[in-house]
Amino acid sequence: MRIAIDAHGGDHAPQAVIEGVKMAAREWPDTTIILVGCDESVLPEPLPGVVFKKVTEVIEPDDEPVRSVRRKKDSSIVVGCRMVKEKEADAFISGGNTGALMAAGLFYTGRLPGVDRPALAPVLPTLSGKGILVLDVGANPEARADHLHQYAKLGSVYAERVLGFEAPRVGLLNIGTEEGKGTELNKAAFALFQEDESLRFLGNVEAREVLYGPCEVLVCDGYSGNILLKNTEGVAKAVFDRLKQVLTQNLLTKLAGAILKPGLKRFAKEMDYKEHGGAPLLGLAGPIIKAHGSSDATAFFNAIRQARRFVENNVMVQLEAEFSRGRGE
Amino acid sequence: MRIAIDAHGGDHAPQAVIEGVKMAAREWPDTTIILVGCDESVLPEPLPGVVFKKVTEVIEPDDEPVRSVRRKKDSSIVVGCRMVKEKEADAFISGGNTGALMAAGLFYTGRLPGVDRPALAPVLPTLSGKGILVLDVGANPEARADHLHQYAKLGSVYAERVLGFEAPRVGLLNIGTEEGKGTELNKAAFALFQEDESLRFLGNVEAREVLYGPCEVLVCDGYSGNILLKNTEGVAKAVFDRLKQVLTQNLLTKLAGAILKPGLKRFAKEMDYKEHGGAPLLGLAGPIIKAHGSSDATAFFNAIRQARRFVENNVMVQLEAEFSRGRGE
Repeated sequence: MRIAIDAHGGDHAPQAVIEGVKMAAREWPDTTIILVGCDESVLPEPLPGVVFKKVTEVIEPDDEPVRSVRRKKDSSIVVGCRMVKEKEADAFISGGNTGALMAAGLFYTGRLPGVDRPALAPVLPTLSGKGILVLDVGANPEARADHLHQYAKLGSVYAERVLGFEAPRVGLLNIGTEEGKGTELNKAAFALFQEDESLRFLGNVEAREVLYGPCEVLVCDGYSGNILLKNTEGVAKAVFDRLKQVLTQNLLTKLAGAILKPGLKRFAKEMDYKEHGGAPLLGLAGPIIKAHGSSDATAFFNAIRQARRFVENNVMVQLEAEFSRGRGE
Repeated sequence: MRIAIDAHGGDHAPQAVIEGVKMAAREWPDTTIILVGCDESVLPEPLPGVVFKKVTEVIEPDDEPVRSVRRKKDSSIVVGCRMVKEKEADAFISGGNTGALMAAGLFYTGRLPGVDRPALAPVLPTLSGKGILVLDVGANPEARADHLHQYAKLGSVYAERVLGFEAPRVGLLNIGTEEGKGTELNKAAFALFQEDESLRFLGNVEAREVLYGPCEVLVCDGYSGNILLKNTEGVAKAVFDRLKQVLTQNLLTKLAGAILKPGLKRFAKEMDYKEHGGAPLLGLAGPIIKAHGSSDATAFFNAIRQARRFVENNVMVQLEAEFSRGRGE
């Protein structure tokens, strides 16, 4: 198996990428990892299983996605996606510009037949620790009901095959639990989900339930999914920030903080999206994974694990079958 | 001043309402409080300033809003709104069925001239403690850009006059900070906000920033506002739940918990929406305030304080002036 990874993607690139790749190379000697965007000089000595693909350009985080993909044909994001298209790599991971990664994916690997709009599908942490797959979180801000139906199918296959959930249940993000709640989009999507007997559709899910893990796959339009994702990050961060103030108020509270440190650390780790790897661009015709911009070495290592499962478990074949069945072929 | 309050509204009604009214009657002897839905038998002895308005019907939390308002004409929600309309009360507060309160408000007091869709406008807690007014959080799930513009104007006046923010800044909830981000709705609203020189428009605000208080008034469509509100509640609750587990793990962590208790309690209080009173239905032609369903006595007391400020500071007059100016009259 050959997994390509963008050496330039993410706030801590290239160092965090290189460290993650080292960890992965030791863990999975059967896997060839292709570091896109650097050469062997980044390693003090050759590492078995790690190869290099030099590039001459970089797409910056603020670059306009479509234009940068058209112009910077020798950037790590474009080269990585092209390698998947040309079967030089089985999967590609990048912590870089999300829009550019999606644009390059659409341009090179294209969409799965039957999918109109690929979705960005991260795992959000839940109190149970198992996490919840949320899609879409912003690849496609304005979705139609049939897009949401496609997300439900994409998410179900991915949650089962890559995340290891048996018989994953699907929820629809909404502003009330009863049928008939929400926007016209919600109502139309609810009807489509209910008609599709291949889905394990639970019904509407309210935003206050998400972290309690009411289902394994949560479907929403990209706009509200993005609000949900960023708000979850923001509130969790704000609460931890404020908690730190409480813990450092005086000597006694600092002592209490020291006692609680292991428990709080475990908790912070549970709440860390990075533990769950990156977000696949589900619906592209190849395994392309967006790692979080703030990924550290462990996050890149986890994303490589996730890409391995994606490839190993023939997720693309399963997805193709799912969508061709859907169209009665 | 006469403030009517629904004795039947909220999970802890009527007891919490009655206790809140007692606190308010002691605090503001100049105010007459009308307890709608019960009689003097609920008090052991008469309390100066508290009067009663008996009703024969109750709108339940699950009742269909419009139908229940049409049918239950002698319910506390309908009677309270009618009292505002007929100037028997200067304001009405209810912790009951939100949809029914909005329907009764629309039917009896009607809308402010120039406002198409009233908005539900709660204050979310922020780390700074001052809070942020968010509107709409669900009165109108599918909004147009001109509705959002009306929310911005309504929110600015209310934030200044009732919440006491000097020159409140307005932000537009969006999935990115740059101009041109988000849906067609976002883009159209952005343009309208920018054109209106009477607004202190800050630009787009991402969901991860909200609890840090980036502005005083945050405008959004009711659907994403509802997602934001419930997700904030859910994440904060989940984090506190999990924190409780960390604190009660063993004797030592319990000791640490005891040390931290005052700081954590203060923190929990800061994060408590109930400290900020209820959510006005901004855009109705009368001061009608929705108290949170889980309101306790203090929350109802705070809602009465808020209703007093609404009336005292002539907010309705100011709003009318704002909207007639907007229409060039």
